[in-house]
Amino acid sequence: MRLRVDVLPGEALPYPDVVLVVDVIRATTTACCLLEAGAEALYLVAGLEAARAFKDRDVLLAGEVGGLKPPGFDLGNSPREALEAPVGGKVVVLSTTNGTKAAHAAARTAKHVLLASLYNAHAAARLARELASEEVAILCAGKEGRAGLDDLYAAGVLAEYLGLLGEVEPEDGARIALSVKRSYQDPLEALALSAAAQALRAVGLEADVPFAAQVARSATVPLLTGRVGEALIFRRAHPGQGG
Amino acid sequence: MRLRVDVLPGEALPYPDVVLVVDVIRATTTACCLLEAGAEALYLVAGLEAARAFKDRDVLLAGEVGGLKPPGFDLGNSPREALEAPVGGKVVVLSTTNGTKAAHAAARTAKHVLLASLYNAHAAARLARELASEEVAILCAGKEGRAGLDDLYAAGVLAEYLGLLGEVEPEDGARIALSVKRSYQDPLEALALSAAAQALRAVGLEADVPFAAQVARSATVPLLTGRVGEALIFRRAHPGQGG
Repeated sequence: MRLRVDVLPGEALPYPDVVLVVDVIRATTTACCLLEAGAEALYLVAGLEAARAFKDRDVLLAGEVGGLKPPGFDLGNSPREALEAPVGGKVVVLSTTNGTKAAHAAARTAKHVLLASLYNAHAAARLARELASEEVAILCAGKEGRAGLDDLYAAGVLAEYLGLLGEVEPEDGARIALSVKRSYQDPLEALALSAAAQALRAVGLEADVPFAAQVARSATVPLLTGRVGEALIFRRAHPGQGG
Repeated sequence: MRLRVDVLPGEALPYPDVVLVVDVIRATTTACCLLEAGAEALYLVAGLEAARAFKDRDVLLAGEVGGLKPPGFDLGNSPREALEAPVGGKVVVLSTTNGTKAAHAAARTAKHVLLASLYNAHAAARLARELASEEVAILCAGKEGRAGLDDLYAAGVLAEYLGLLGEVEPEDGARIALSVKRSYQDPLEALALSAAAQALRAVGLEADVPFAAQVARSATVPLLTGRVGEALIFRRAHPGQGG
């Protein structure tokens, strides 16, 4: 199976059938935790206004401005908070910039879009492997158009695990991600050096970094199941369910 | 000094004062070799039509289509050929897609744009250091919107050498490039695995890969000195000339 890692969302590239979107600090980690905590569905939207458009419906709003919970929102974008939040049976509208942009880019041509993080890395890789026939792409969200060390590290963990599940042919991006993975002693070392982690420290949310650095703690994989307006709808999936 | 590596040309990012553009297989290696061989100037253009527009002037045309010399051109895009070519005192119009796109992106906001490769890595890094006050960016050209292992490796060599010349603060992209550099035993191992090298092998030009993998063989650095129409004009510069 061919294995591709895009270090940033591309402009007009066709993506293969199966794409793992990675925004490890913090959107795809938080997305996993919200579904793990029992949310019925996630609506992924780009920006606060798009989220507020859902305000009158029976939903919870989650997101961030400069790392912090926006005024009028129910939740921030913290995976620690998400795991404890009373979201059981609810739809959560999650506003994130980089993660949503990447997910939309993937959804343009991919058949299956999965949200992956270190937290659900093994489950996400297994589900991708089950769904893919010829190629899996890992799409790193980055940060405002710049590659993120955190996302490349997570892509390297996913790439390495995909290689354990079966033979893969890595292209340039996958080799870059594997180099990053193998250059650090442990996930926290890499994540803590990233610009994304620095931004969290600046607003006192540095505890989210070691949380996001935990590998394979969850078997929950957010899987794209449809759209409502501009929002992408993700629901809980698990490997071994038969696709 | 801050050190930044962009794994691909960005969309609307401001670049710092000094940018090293890297397209190691092969445009920036060939550019160095053409000036090393005595060319008076290089006109870097995107595409064959832009190059042919200079046909009536007293210039040589160099470039490639699918790796090979285009019909009516004087030279291909081979650094081996460039070093031996009768270009003394001539203007060479060099048509390359990815390298030119990256150089144009850098030229939008940078004060100094340098073309860097492994072949001139130490000279390019020294000149960048001399010209920069606060920040140096290394901009990888990539290949059709995808990150290249060859360019990331070369960026890692430049980043490492810049770190030897004085203290640097690497951001995420620079750490990614340094990881790639340190993951391979030698330059040829990394370059030979890249998609760019595979494309050269497909057209029988694989001998350009070990050539491009030579480190610090030239003290010649192509430096942007102006424009003529859409073309970027590069001339020979050396570190230690006083900027």
